[in-house]
Amino acid sequence: MDIALDRTSETPLYLQILNEMRTMILTGALPPGFRLPPERRLAESLAVNRSTVLAAYRELKAEGLVGAHVGRGTVVLAKPFAAPAPEPRGELPWRQLLRHDALAQDPLVRDLLELAERSDMISLAAGLPAPELLPMATLRRLLAEILKQEGPGVLLHCPTEGHLPLREALAELMVARGVSCSPADVLVLSGSQQGIDLVARVLIAPGDVVVVEQPSFFGGLQVFRAAQARLVGVPVDEEGMRPDALEAVLQRYRPKLIYTLPSFQNPSSAVLSPARRLRLLELAYQHEVPILEDDPYSELAYDGPPPVSLKALDRRGHVIYLSTFSKVLFPGLRLGWVIAPPPMLRQLVLAKQIVDLHSNTPGQWLLDRFLREGHHPTHVARVRAAYRERRDVVDRALRVAAVPGLEWRRPAGGFYFWCRLPEGARTSRLLTRAAETGVSFLPGGTCFVDDPGAGFARLNFTYPPADRVAEGVGRFATALRDVLGEPSQPRSARGGTRPIV
Amino acid sequence: MDIALDRTSETPLYLQILNEMRTMILTGALPPGFRLPPERRLAESLAVNRSTVLAAYRELKAEGLVGAHVGRGTVVLAKPFAAPAPEPRGELPWRQLLRHDALAQDPLVRDLLELAERSDMISLAAGLPAPELLPMATLRRLLAEILKQEGPGVLLHCPTEGHLPLREALAELMVARGVSCSPADVLVLSGSQQGIDLVARVLIAPGDVVVVEQPSFFGGLQVFRAAQARLVGVPVDEEGMRPDALEAVLQRYRPKLIYTLPSFQNPSSAVLSPARRLRLLELAYQHEVPILEDDPYSELAYDGPPPVSLKALDRRGHVIYLSTFSKVLFPGLRLGWVIAPPPMLRQLVLAKQIVDLHSNTPGQWLLDRFLREGHHPTHVARVRAAYRERRDVVDRALRVAAVPGLEWRRPAGGFYFWCRLPEGARTSRLLTRAAETGVSFLPGGTCFVDDPGAGFARLNFTYPPADRVAEGVGRFATALRDVLGEPSQPRSARGGTRPIV
Repeated sequence: MDIALDRTSETPLYLQILNEMRTMILTGALPPGFRLPPERRLAESLAVNRSTVLAAYRELKAEGLVGAHVGRGTVVLAKPFAAPAPEPRGELPWRQLLRHDALAQDPLVRDLLELAERSDMISLAAGLPAPELLPMATLRRLLAEILKQEGPGVLLHCPTEGHLPLREALAELMVARGVSCSPADVLVLSGSQQGIDLVARVLIAPGDVVVVEQPSFFGGLQVFRAAQARLVGVPVDEEGMRPDALEAVLQRYRPKLIYTLPSFQNPSSAVLSPARRLRLLELAYQHEVPILEDDPYSELAYDGPPPVSLKALDRRGHVIYLSTFSKVLFPGLRLGWVIAPPPMLRQLVLAKQIVDLHSNTPGQWLLDRFLREGHHPTHVARVRAAYRERRDVVDRALRVAAVPGLEWRRPAGGFYFWCRLPEGARTSRLLTRAAETGVSFLPGGTCFVDDPGAGFARLNFTYPPADRVAEGVGRFATALRDVLGEPSQPRSARGGTRPIV
Repeated sequence: MDIALDRTSETPLYLQILNEMRTMILTGALPPGFRLPPERRLAESLAVNRSTVLAAYRELKAEGLVGAHVGRGTVVLAKPFAAPAPEPRGELPWRQLLRHDALAQDPLVRDLLELAERSDMISLAAGLPAPELLPMATLRRLLAEILKQEGPGVLLHCPTEGHLPLREALAELMVARGVSCSPADVLVLSGSQQGIDLVARVLIAPGDVVVVEQPSFFGGLQVFRAAQARLVGVPVDEEGMRPDALEAVLQRYRPKLIYTLPSFQNPSSAVLSPARRLRLLELAYQHEVPILEDDPYSELAYDGPPPVSLKALDRRGHVIYLSTFSKVLFPGLRLGWVIAPPPMLRQLVLAKQIVDLHSNTPGQWLLDRFLREGHHPTHVARVRAAYRERRDVVDRALRVAAVPGLEWRRPAGGFYFWCRLPEGARTSRLLTRAAETGVSFLPGGTCFVDDPGAGFARLNFTYPPADRVAEGVGRFATALRDVLGEPSQPRSARGGTRPIV
């Protein structure tokens, strides 16, 4: 029997034997009725332990390829009966074939993105930066320079970890966020959504418990649901995740991960207080649970300095830090980054290699130049001022609209007003009515683990220009009054609303 | 160093060395500051490959037990763990927390990408297009135009399915491949690697059987292993996957998917014959198994027209078609596409939304313009001619080198020579020797389900320029003769080889 073994391979010898013999049987090289050599003899001729051959034969038997008969040894069995296949059926039954357990059925984000593209609609739904504030001229110049000065490398592969200069620039950027890390701790991502997915992929097995804030980021919940995690929610109040509730959860479940957005949280815009940050870390240390800190918004602080990140406070390597340029700069580039302790980062890199090899190269070169030439702080200062103004516009518009029972807090940073709807306003009806009135918003229920239909609406204030955002809030208030059965304010006071068709 | 190895054990040798050394370090038998023997010397004294010792040392380094310093060799580090920490505890036990079941441990692709970047090395390992043939001037012009003519939309989000004009252009492109589809059937991917991963994600549950070619694409095998599929291999001969073996496999196992590269297969460059294409489809219909057709290379046909895709022949919607621009155009953009029957495509879109929301926008606009302005056929014709020449150069160089026992077939298309090594040449030793000689190749074992250490090597001929590729083959032949114990040809005949350090 001609079996070539590779003793330096990491594949166990029994598997090498098994696979070769299976192929020989399936291809007919070992025909039905063929007697396999006795285990001891094959073991000798291959210079392996008898138990190795035994394991291979046992598996062949289990697969129904050979049978053992006392006195006759181990014999290749006749080919399995041809499938009774009555005759070529039609299309594939895809619905049966697809995995339904691990799939999100909810195309909400996609639908919201599409909605935002309709020109007649004021979108307060999507979490997007203001397009007109993008530094297009700078980006155009930088791209032209890169393509002129650099060789084709800008269009070739780069390492899975990312373009090294960019990783250096990101480590540098993190200093401003109070985090001291080296470029080796940074992995460039195809957007921070990918970071959540990769962390789930390397950490979460089906049935594992993941602690999430209530409410939390819809895209994060989607990832953990797809990973078949058990989601356990911890309520958020005006100071962020409640540590008493968190402690109870940690004691009762043994979660594999705490997922949090501590700074200008999506959707509530809550900021975890400094005392709670320390308490959160302490609890994580005590229960040996890693924390995934998702931080897209901390630079966008309107009333004071940005909050200090958990990563900056973490003294024991429990925090995986995730951020992105999609909220401050250009979402279409799909670039984010993760900073993680070395054993975690290594696994994230291996997982990323499998899912997309590496993030797009030209975008990384562009971002690197943008950071190195010092455009980032200038740009952040500029959008911060504009967004602060839009926030104040929305706050005033909500006050002017004065819908009875509507509650909100003016956010100190980030992208969103998180509004508690008046008693009796159902988001499903409101969503339809709002669309008719020409405005979209994110229904709050999507941000909860259990979608209690909670009467919340998330209003984004960064995407539409200042005049449009005020008009959008007016339309929202009109729709709200409509579903509440309140009389609308006179239309002329707010400028005409355009119904969509 | 007293390390006892058991060569009959199923534990790989490198793991045996690793485990023994780790114990010695943790127990203080090897104290902090102790210098480990140089890899080459330890390999000699244990009579193992140098790569085996290398793997053990690399892992010790990764675990933080030893450090490598230029000039000082590999040194045991101070004890990494604090004494049995009373309370609170220390760093997280990441190793325990991480999922080991679903993770690939093999950073081979990444290492090969890094190797390819070393200027002293001729890379025949990576599957890359020729950088100097990239249409840089055209791309530069198109990008400048896009940034000038278009608004900021080019840097904003786009739908998960992809930029609609690009999807239209891709549907148009598919006509040339014999496939009639609408833009709605096309999903733009962040590289075709992502397509394999998404298909696995929506279709494969742990334990499901996936049929793969033997040999097959390493990155595909990695995806299915990470999905915890059971891989069953079907041998490939000069006409592609063998239908008799496939039939036997389909009857015995009930696979969820057949993964195939029917046209200029990676790594064997085999082309599935027309008769076998029809037979494969018939078998898939009969057993109701979907086919994932991975088609990166079909445009690169050197001796005739490109093969007709399975998708073009499929009359019952069983084929999921996957392709990419990474082999013909710019791999760094990370753009590919998948065409699938509607129920499958819908799930792929939902899964993509979770993993990265959408592929990078500017790359999609760029590709769209490139296709619409008709540059693609011109570019393909140009690289096809250049690659045909390089293929012939390699074929000649292999003949001239005349290594006894080395077998290969001249590929009719694609990227690779698939060489059967002479009896007695082990790829592990050859890989080390080749690296010393200044050339890299892909060891064939990585392309098999069971890594039988099969004596194969994959040589890429598209990445290095014609003169370098010939030199690379010369170095490869020298390394091969070295490990076979043959006398090398006189060095002057091939130009000096540069040893690497």
